[in-house]
Amino acid sequence: MTHRLETFFKPKSIAVVGASANTTKIGNATLKNILISDYDCEVYPINPKEKQILGEKCYKKLTDVPNDIDLVLVSVPAKIVPQIMRDCVQKKVKNVIIISSGFSEAGNHELEDELKSIIEKTDMNVLGPNVMGYKNSADGLDASFVYGKARKGDLSLISQSGALGIGMIYLANNEFVGISKIIGVGNKLDIDDDDLIDYFAQDPDTKVIGLYIEAVKDGRKFMNSIKRCKKPVLVVKAGISEAGARATASHTGSMAGSDKIYGAAIKQAGGIRCRDVVELFDMARALAGQPPARGNRIGIVTNGGGLGILLTDACVENGLTVPKLSKTTYKKIDKILPDLIKPNNPVDIVGDAGFYRYEAATRALLEDSNIDGVIVASVHGGYARPQEFTGAILKMIRERKLHEEYKKPILATWVGGKEFEDLVWDLKSAGVPIYPSAWRTARSMMGLYLEGQRLKREKKKGN
Amino acid sequence: MTHRLETFFKPKSIAVVGASANTTKIGNATLKNILISDYDCEVYPINPKEKQILGEKCYKKLTDVPNDIDLVLVSVPAKIVPQIMRDCVQKKVKNVIIISSGFSEAGNHELEDELKSIIEKTDMNVLGPNVMGYKNSADGLDASFVYGKARKGDLSLISQSGALGIGMIYLANNEFVGISKIIGVGNKLDIDDDDLIDYFAQDPDTKVIGLYIEAVKDGRKFMNSIKRCKKPVLVVKAGISEAGARATASHTGSMAGSDKIYGAAIKQAGGIRCRDVVELFDMARALAGQPPARGNRIGIVTNGGGLGILLTDACVENGLTVPKLSKTTYKKIDKILPDLIKPNNPVDIVGDAGFYRYEAATRALLEDSNIDGVIVASVHGGYARPQEFTGAILKMIRERKLHEEYKKPILATWVGGKEFEDLVWDLKSAGVPIYPSAWRTARSMMGLYLEGQRLKREKKKGN
Repeated sequence: MTHRLETFFKPKSIAVVGASANTTKIGNATLKNILISDYDCEVYPINPKEKQILGEKCYKKLTDVPNDIDLVLVSVPAKIVPQIMRDCVQKKVKNVIIISSGFSEAGNHELEDELKSIIEKTDMNVLGPNVMGYKNSADGLDASFVYGKARKGDLSLISQSGALGIGMIYLANNEFVGISKIIGVGNKLDIDDDDLIDYFAQDPDTKVIGLYIEAVKDGRKFMNSIKRCKKPVLVVKAGISEAGARATASHTGSMAGSDKIYGAAIKQAGGIRCRDVVELFDMARALAGQPPARGNRIGIVTNGGGLGILLTDACVENGLTVPKLSKTTYKKIDKILPDLIKPNNPVDIVGDAGFYRYEAATRALLEDSNIDGVIVASVHGGYARPQEFTGAILKMIRERKLHEEYKKPILATWVGGKEFEDLVWDLKSAGVPIYPSAWRTARSMMGLYLEGQRLKREKKKGN
Repeated sequence: MTHRLETFFKPKSIAVVGASANTTKIGNATLKNILISDYDCEVYPINPKEKQILGEKCYKKLTDVPNDIDLVLVSVPAKIVPQIMRDCVQKKVKNVIIISSGFSEAGNHELEDELKSIIEKTDMNVLGPNVMGYKNSADGLDASFVYGKARKGDLSLISQSGALGIGMIYLANNEFVGISKIIGVGNKLDIDDDDLIDYFAQDPDTKVIGLYIEAVKDGRKFMNSIKRCKKPVLVVKAGISEAGARATASHTGSMAGSDKIYGAAIKQAGGIRCRDVVELFDMARALAGQPPARGNRIGIVTNGGGLGILLTDACVENGLTVPKLSKTTYKKIDKILPDLIKPNNPVDIVGDAGFYRYEAATRALLEDSNIDGVIVASVHGGYARPQEFTGAILKMIRERKLHEEYKKPILATWVGGKEFEDLVWDLKSAGVPIYPSAWRTARSMMGLYLEGQRLKREKKKGN
């Protein structure tokens, strides 16, 4: 069965109400974004005063458009929006995005209630008001007013904050986290987080779901949508502190609710809570690029003893373990280390470690059935070129495709400077998650472990 | 009075025992680093088999050198080190760095004890064994075997881990944190962390002190040196978890001790504990570049409501407050905001905020006597160019120099991509701390608040 939001995300015809020739207007930016999309659809600008905008024939009213309209974007002053919505009902429009602001978030609850009563008895899908729209990178459609193009990929993002959502597009590009869809939810008059989670759960172009939320309207529905979802769901919940909750109320007009209750409920539903958007992208990179960890036993390879200890501390603080090496693994690694050095976990392959020591130690850990995930770390220590470290990781990623026992996640950490940065770029663009901090690496490994646990529970339920 | 380590860091003559013509040897790299230093001193390679190394006349033994030697660097196999140390005693050398490893960290406690007994009745200053040496960027001398040049600046770093210390040099360059001195302490046969803290405390080229420690030999001496120090001391303590402590033991042969006890003691001594080296550099940037915060009341300016809430949460979680605006400040900011938007703290200057709104809102917070520090935040939201955000910050930094009431720290946060990165680079190189994460910004502001509290206590003691 087709999901009710299918035509919302993949419309064959779009009207922009409030389309404008004035380049400072949101209605201009919105129309332009649709036109420059690499996406095939009919586009109808609506503006009572214009005959043509950006080369497209303009209609005075929605009801003047001679054909069916799958999606309407509304960018007119708040007080006119009810009339537009009545036109939508008359025209039997299925999907509407109300970009306009000036509703409950500004204290105008009555105006928002009026919209609600207009759509009440229809099966219209309405996003917003007070919303950026969405960018569907998977299909090439930009149905938003914000500029910037998100790279195509596996992560679908739901943001209650428009501006932060936009910033996240750029952050995603920078971190080489490809985006499938990114969408703002605004005041949630109709389409709510749980509807979007349900849609992305069945969307073949989405592998990981991320949310930035300040408040949810119906906690049970929200948690149930996460519970139903068979993909990892990452949640940033803002408004934890009292001062933050106060700001939340003024930002989207919603109450933040108790932080502890949210935390416990998200966890119980099988979602992963992230401290901020950086962590969300860190975990998304790991979940999109690496297999989940089947258990919490982590092996660490490092050319710097100190970094190994920091990684170990961070792993343990996040519910992972760094077990002693098995006899077999000890022997394998002992062979490749200098005489004075004895293997341990973290495996300190010491400062002069080059390509081969990285490769052999990582392989030994991948082959060890007592290890569920491997972190490979490098400090810009001065003997081997950083490229030997990244080269060894890429080799292991290639080998992993051939060996069943290697199907464990590999994450990387680095401490260094410029020379490293270019290599980090290479690794990221090859889909290998690498982080400049022990803490961020350990948190991402924790994310892979939690996903492994979720899959186990799901399998159990399935039997 | 001159500190006993003054000639250790500023020697007029240096001998390298184990100097080598073989470019794969540490004794080669060490000699080369001294020779390429922008520093004026006599250099004596010591090697029984060579007549000349890297163009310098070579001596068979230390005792053959006709002149006084201020500093000896030792890079020979461990078993020969005792004889070299006896030569040092005979030659009345004041300062020795034992780079060689193979002592207590490898289980050879007897050999290390032998060294101890040789230097026992002398006033020799001995660093190591198992150590990288130091880089004194303030004076231009590199007395270490590791490559890489640290930019000159205000931070002096003490690292128990050699490799991590090296990585930190590159990290520092990348973050535009200038280094005064960076030094490894290794097995701490003689020179210990507290000696170095005491030295840096009186060193006019050091403004902030940072330590990476795994264990300290004498907890009371260590804590007292922090207590005595009238500069901010940042401490990364590794080996928190049981597995981490196990790795610590094998890394430097020392016991990690109880984490909680360390944490409480560092705090009580007035030091600031950092979770990892990234946080250490984050705080060092803030402490070196910004005035301390006189209180914990923070004002936040943002073009993205969500980011403001995340920042507020992070501030509150770290002991700061985000108070409501005073009437005067409210009025000032109300004037510059669009009609629908009302001022709050965090001050949401909304998505289309350009240079002027950033400038005016930041100034209003700087002028407010209820605010002790300001965070200015930007999401790559799409209306104003990021340069308007960074330009406004730089203007406020310039104005701060002229107004007494403006003498409050300003930190910045951004969420965005490539276009931002170049501007971030500009800000960092101008000494303005900017972070790509709400959490990191709040932690650094906490560091400035803790430093403000320390200065208050000091002033009180002085009265």
